[in-house]
Amino acid sequence: MSDKNVIPYKIYLEESEMPESWYNVRADMKNKPAPLLNPGTREPMTAEELSGVFCEELVAQELDNEHPYIAIPQEIRDFYKMYRPSPLVRAYCLEERLQTPAKIYYKFEGNNTSGSHKLNSAIAQAYYAKKQGLKGVTTETGAGQWGTALSMACSYFELDCKVYMVKVSYEQKPFRREVMRTYGASVTPSPSMTTEIGKKILAEHPGTTGSLGCAISEAVEVAVTNPGYRYVLGSVLNQVLLHQSVIGLETKAALDKYNIKPDLIIGCAGGGSNLGGLIAPFVGEKLRGEADYQIIAVEPASCPSFTRGTYAYDFCDTGMICPLAKMYTLGSSYIPAPNHAGGLRYHGMSPVLSQLYDDGLMEARSVRQTDVFEAAEQFARVEGILPAPESSHAIRVAIDEALKCKETGEEKTIVFGLTGTGYFDLVAYEKFHNGEMENYIPTDEEIAESIAKLPKMD
Amino acid sequence: MSDKNVIPYKIYLEESEMPESWYNVRADMKNKPAPLLNPGTREPMTAEELSGVFCEELVAQELDNEHPYIAIPQEIRDFYKMYRPSPLVRAYCLEERLQTPAKIYYKFEGNNTSGSHKLNSAIAQAYYAKKQGLKGVTTETGAGQWGTALSMACSYFELDCKVYMVKVSYEQKPFRREVMRTYGASVTPSPSMTTEIGKKILAEHPGTTGSLGCAISEAVEVAVTNPGYRYVLGSVLNQVLLHQSVIGLETKAALDKYNIKPDLIIGCAGGGSNLGGLIAPFVGEKLRGEADYQIIAVEPASCPSFTRGTYAYDFCDTGMICPLAKMYTLGSSYIPAPNHAGGLRYHGMSPVLSQLYDDGLMEARSVRQTDVFEAAEQFARVEGILPAPESSHAIRVAIDEALKCKETGEEKTIVFGLTGTGYFDLVAYEKFHNGEMENYIPTDEEIAESIAKLPKMD
Repeated sequence: MSDKNVIPYKIYLEESEMPESWYNVRADMKNKPAPLLNPGTREPMTAEELSGVFCEELVAQELDNEHPYIAIPQEIRDFYKMYRPSPLVRAYCLEERLQTPAKIYYKFEGNNTSGSHKLNSAIAQAYYAKKQGLKGVTTETGAGQWGTALSMACSYFELDCKVYMVKVSYEQKPFRREVMRTYGASVTPSPSMTTEIGKKILAEHPGTTGSLGCAISEAVEVAVTNPGYRYVLGSVLNQVLLHQSVIGLETKAALDKYNIKPDLIIGCAGGGSNLGGLIAPFVGEKLRGEADYQIIAVEPASCPSFTRGTYAYDFCDTGMICPLAKMYTLGSSYIPAPNHAGGLRYHGMSPVLSQLYDDGLMEARSVRQTDVFEAAEQFARVEGILPAPESSHAIRVAIDEALKCKETGEEKTIVFGLTGTGYFDLVAYEKFHNGEMENYIPTDEEIAESIAKLPKMD
Repeated sequence: MSDKNVIPYKIYLEESEMPESWYNVRADMKNKPAPLLNPGTREPMTAEELSGVFCEELVAQELDNEHPYIAIPQEIRDFYKMYRPSPLVRAYCLEERLQTPAKIYYKFEGNNTSGSHKLNSAIAQAYYAKKQGLKGVTTETGAGQWGTALSMACSYFELDCKVYMVKVSYEQKPFRREVMRTYGASVTPSPSMTTEIGKKILAEHPGTTGSLGCAISEAVEVAVTNPGYRYVLGSVLNQVLLHQSVIGLETKAALDKYNIKPDLIIGCAGGGSNLGGLIAPFVGEKLRGEADYQIIAVEPASCPSFTRGTYAYDFCDTGMICPLAKMYTLGSSYIPAPNHAGGLRYHGMSPVLSQLYDDGLMEARSVRQTDVFEAAEQFARVEGILPAPESSHAIRVAIDEALKCKETGEEKTIVFGLTGTGYFDLVAYEKFHNGEMENYIPTDEEIAESIAKLPKMD
């Protein structure tokens, strides 16, 4: 009997089967992720210190290495029901085109207006801000997916939302900006004259087009100097991985429903929130010795923090005003070459994933940009979804692995995370079609140079 | 017991509950839609005449006024499974925001890369072209939704796809063009030097930015002069409404599953394919005397074919090379003012819907553009989906009707069609946010002038 008679193209959970709690993988980790350090004292950041910047309940989640399950508040579960459960899709058409014996599944997070998984954490962070009685939140955005997700979440809870958008993106991506405005957010190109740090940077570099590091600095300044505001962040942090565990929990529930056991789980990794969320319950089983899975993080060759970085304490931002985090990093002074997967252009990596990687619980692979777009196009043509460049990193490795199965005859079950859609990335697709896309791979010297500038920890 | 405990936010049918046949409402119509006429002889177009332009099986479907059910070939049903069933969503959040006792549902067709319902017919038309052994198909596209859908469908069946895109859209909407290129389609700005009619138009009007009528003429010329090619069209035709009945059949199955009987069904209408598909099974029940529903077609005040047009034979294209259709029309020489719902800027209306409207089986209402965008933004903020401007016409009337219920206390059940997403319409949203959007309403004289130019039928 063909799989098609048993397993649908898209597995949707019932509302009653959706997760009621997030899963906190840190509770099952023997080696906990290293704590955030105060950049001045080099001592672990206390809840009190963190509460000046983040909402109280989110600080508690950030520091919680003990509780494996944290209940999802009803208000957030109601919002999740608007766009979740996301489908776990069996890629029958891709399998047929590849003529592979592998069985390929992907968890598709792009069916919401933010276009990605970012909404899973944005709504949680907005909820806790509302609950704390705040007026609003501030954040930065580069490519704009996170800013869009946060705008949607704030609109739902009627919170003010101030987004600092890297100036070059603000100008080149006016459509992302308009989506955020539709949701009532104020979007300011960064650097701006609305903050002290922005004025300082503009005075020193009048023609600058901005950077994520600068936008973070502005957003944090606004949060800490305006009563009733806090700063929120879309990746890297432990709390964000916690919220994103809804991806993995749904995936596991959908697989279990049809008695499917994956051999291989693949996800793209920038700050690590999508991958961390997708693999959380599976890594939990590995940590508890209940099951084994091969897990692969995929990163761009232009920004290879896992595969060519070092595991050390580093600044999370280029402005060096944020706490120090122990993570795989290329050094906070590393400037990734322009590539079209804005969501993967981060010098570091989630501390949780960094520890799991260091402990050998997952692997990492880096891929070249043109190979990524080739996979994206192949996927789009048979599966009908135009994938985001970020997500297409995972597609590339999923296809590579499926083709290996074709050679060996292995019927592996492959699951990958399709984090989002590429509707706002068509400039990149255009470059690819016109043969104008470049592959940038940093030299060993470049990486050594920025790693040499890591903060001294003695 | 609250509805939320019984009816989920999103009703998804199981694959086994998806329609196996399309429903042909013409079979149940006492007054059949008037036949297409040969523009030369004024005699009904024969199958043979139509087969020079359209695929054979599609011609049969075009002319079939008898069979109520037409089986959906397995290959098309397999493709449908990639992005269907589409969810029937209960708009709990919108209801709460409006504080209405009405129960609002929408059938959301935007969760595929074409961004709209157009894919439902594109895949059918591509399938029959492939089955006939053709090399490829040609078509025109304005805003680009239909061209995108057809590109996706052709890519799936490995058919060549030549799209003539109105030049002004080609230049202003490069992203739509890139999506089509991702799917392997060739996209030519129209008018072009690739056709005789294009050369002629360019010689006469060197600076023209093109029109839908011109693009149709080029696409038809290429189809009839290249062996192995046929022309395909995304709306208006009987065959397209047939394919789109999958929307209504799924909607009805989802409602029946929870014993929900709608009072009011609302859809936007340009050429009529979405509305015709959505209402087909419900109109069928009306025609057979089994049930009654209020049905409202919503059109832009700038292009009010139902509400201010006349029911008469007219040309389907501005170039006057296509067959004559009897329909509600503003006259083929009517040039709608620039408005941002490109999909609704058509001078005529589906002959099937025109007949139903003339027989009093449905109503029509026209709405102003700024009121439409106000509804779009209100909807986006609480339901999390950024709607296409076209679809937002239906949202406007759904909200108006829900607010009426608030006044009267009636608990009406309202179902509307949410045909697509607005990711490629952000220039329009920007104009709305900036207060630069205009409402254009034609004068009676303007309409009388183009109606006076209707072909004489004596």
